[in-house]
Amino acid sequence: MGSGPASSGRPTISDVAAAAGVGRASAARALGGYGAVSPELRRRVEEAAAALGYRSNALARNLSLGSSRTLGVVVADIANPFFAGVVRGITDTARRAGLDTVVLNTDEDLDDEAHAVEVLLEKSVDGLVVATAAGADAPVPHLHEAAAQVPLVLVDRVVHGLAVDSVTIDNAAAARAGTAALLEAGHRRVGLVWGPALQPVPAQRGRLLSALDSAVSTGADRVRGYLDALRAARVPFDPDLVALTESTVEAAQDATDRMLDLPDPATALLTTDDFALLGVLRVLGRRGLRPGADVSLVGFDDVPWAELWSPPLTMIAQPLLALGTEVAELLLARIGGRDDPPRAVRLPAQLVRRDSIGPR
Amino acid sequence: MGSGPASSGRPTISDVAAAAGVGRASAARALGGYGAVSPELRRRVEEAAAALGYRSNALARNLSLGSSRTLGVVVADIANPFFAGVVRGITDTARRAGLDTVVLNTDEDLDDEAHAVEVLLEKSVDGLVVATAAGADAPVPHLHEAAAQVPLVLVDRVVHGLAVDSVTIDNAAAARAGTAALLEAGHRRVGLVWGPALQPVPAQRGRLLSALDSAVSTGADRVRGYLDALRAARVPFDPDLVALTESTVEAAQDATDRMLDLPDPATALLTTDDFALLGVLRVLGRRGLRPGADVSLVGFDDVPWAELWSPPLTMIAQPLLALGTEVAELLLARIGGRDDPPRAVRLPAQLVRRDSIGPR
Repeated sequence: MGSGPASSGRPTISDVAAAAGVGRASAARALGGYGAVSPELRRRVEEAAAALGYRSNALARNLSLGSSRTLGVVVADIANPFFAGVVRGITDTARRAGLDTVVLNTDEDLDDEAHAVEVLLEKSVDGLVVATAAGADAPVPHLHEAAAQVPLVLVDRVVHGLAVDSVTIDNAAAARAGTAALLEAGHRRVGLVWGPALQPVPAQRGRLLSALDSAVSTGADRVRGYLDALRAARVPFDPDLVALTESTVEAAQDATDRMLDLPDPATALLTTDDFALLGVLRVLGRRGLRPGADVSLVGFDDVPWAELWSPPLTMIAQPLLALGTEVAELLLARIGGRDDPPRAVRLPAQLVRRDSIGPR
Repeated sequence: MGSGPASSGRPTISDVAAAAGVGRASAARALGGYGAVSPELRRRVEEAAAALGYRSNALARNLSLGSSRTLGVVVADIANPFFAGVVRGITDTARRAGLDTVVLNTDEDLDDEAHAVEVLLEKSVDGLVVATAAGADAPVPHLHEAAAQVPLVLVDRVVHGLAVDSVTIDNAAAARAGTAALLEAGHRRVGLVWGPALQPVPAQRGRLLSALDSAVSTGADRVRGYLDALRAARVPFDPDLVALTESTVEAAQDATDRMLDLPDPATALLTTDDFALLGVLRVLGRRGLRPGADVSLVGFDDVPWAELWSPPLTMIAQPLLALGTEVAELLLARIGGRDDPPRAVRLPAQLVRRDSIGPR
C-alpha cells in the first residue's frame, strides 16, 4: 500500500489494485465501469490510479460502454491438445488486457460454426477468433458477415478471399522438413498419415494438388510440403503411401497396416497429428517393430510424452502458446483501432530431432 | 423432405429441420424464437414441427424469453486433458438440448473464479458449472450468490455447506484401489506424487488428515484413499513418501528423485495426474529404471499413450465424457424445474491393470 509499481514502465492494473489494497478483479471492475462496485471502492481505486499515473490505453478507449469486454473463440475441438494450447495462449493474453474469453466448439461442422459465430455476435463480443472448418476455397458467408461487424482473426486455417488477419504455422515448410529428414536418412518409401479426408486419393500428383485447394488449409499445406520434399529428392509420388481418411486413431491404424503390407512397404512414416501418431505406434507395438530401428517416424505436435518414449521420438513442435498469444495481440490491436491491411502471420514450427529416424 | 423422423420415439429438432428442408441451426432459431430468421423460414419450420408433433420440452418452457440459452462453465485449466474431456461432455449434451456453452478459465485463482462467475451471470447464462479452485472448507461467497440466481452444479471438486448438485468421481476409492494394488504386490514403500500443495507435509497421519480438510476436495480425497489403503495393509504412514507440492512436471521429478534416494527408498509410486506421471517417467528414464521391473507404478487418468508405453502402464481411468454428460444433464434438469434436494453424484473410476506393477 502506498508503494509504487514493482516493475518499471507503465503501471498496470495490478499495480493500481495493490496500491488501493483491493483485488485485481475489483480494480478492473472499478476502472472499467462494469460490474457491481461500491462507491467507496471505486473512489479508492480511482485515487490510486491517479496517484500512479495509470491510464487506460487505446484498447480501453475503443471498447464501447456497451461492450462485453469479451473475445469470442470458435474452435473445432476443445479437447484436442492443439486447440487447448492455443486457447490457453489467447485466454492469458486477453486477460492481461482485461478481457474475458468465451470458447465455443464446432466439432468441425460448418453449420455449427455459423451458429457459434452468430451466438457470439449476439453476445456483443468485441472480437472473434475462428479456426474454421471450411476449406480454403469455401465461400464462408458467415465469416464475411462477422468480419463486417467486429475484428476477426483466423487461426490455424486460412480462407482465400477473406480479408482478415490470420495466424498459422508454416505447415508446408514443417511437413517438408519432416519428410526431408526421413529422405535424407535414405528412405524412399515414406508414408503420410494423414492429410485432409480425400477418398479415393487422386493417383496423380497434379490431381492431388488440385483436390487440395478445396480442403482445410492446414492439412492441405502439410500434404503439399510432403510432395515438395519428395520432388526435391526425385522420389516418385505413390498414392498408396498417402492416407487421406477421417482423423481417428482407428483410421490411422488401418492406414499404417495397409502401408506396411504393401509389396514394396513403407519404411518411414510422417504423422500429422497425435491421433495419427497413436494409431501408428499401436500398429508398430502390435507387430513388434521399433521406431527408428524397424520403421522410421516423424510426428506432428511435440506432445510431452514423445521425448520420454523408447526411443525418444523425432517430432515437429508447433508453438501453441505463441500462436494463441499472436492471435490475441493482433485481435486486441484491431479492437484498439489498428487499420492497416490484413496480415498473414506464419510462425515457424521446429523439427525436434530425437531417435526415431534410422537408416532404411 | 416430407418424410417422417428417421428414429423412433419423439421427433427431434433435426427431424423438424430435415422435414422443413433447412439446417438444424436455422430450425433451432425458428423454434426458439431467437436470432434472425425470415418469416417464411419460420413458417416452414413451424409447419414441419406441427406435422411431426414436435413439442418443446420442460427445459424449453423454462428458458425465459430473455434467456441466453447458454450454459456457463468455469474450469481451472482448459488445456488440462481432464477438463478438456469434461467440457467436451458438457458441450455435447448441452448442444443436443439446443443450448450453447461458454467456457472461462481461472488458472486455479479464486479471484479470477469469482470474476468469471460474475461475467457469466452478467451474460445471463441459464446455468453454471464450476470446478472451483476453493478448498472444501472455504466460504465461497461468489458461489453462494451465483446459486441464488441460477442453477449451479459443481464438477470434480465439492465444497461443504453449499447446497447444490455436484458430480465427481469417487476419488478416495480410486486412490485406495491403486494403492492397494501396489501393496498387494508386496510393496511396503509406496510413494504418492502428489496431493494438494501442503508444505511441509505434516509428520503425523492425524495432522495430515486435518490439514486436508482445507484443501481442494479432489486431491484431499486421493490422499485419504492412499492413507486408508496403507492402514488397511498395516503399513505405517511415512511423510517422506508423500509429495504435496505445486503441480508441475519439474516438482514431480524432484519428488521422485527424493523418494528414490531415501535410505529406505520407494519401490512403488502412485501418481495423481498426468503431469506427475510425466515427471516420474522422466526420472525413471534418466536412471534407466523400467516401470514394473524396477519401480512399480500406478497413474491417475488413463491418457491414450499409457497403454502403448513399454511396458503398458496400469492406470486409473476417469470417465471424462460421462462426468461432463452427468453434469450437463443435472443442470438441464434443474433449469427445467426439478427442485428435489441437491445430489452428490460420484461416478466410479476404473483401475485398468496392465504391466507396470511388479513384485517388490
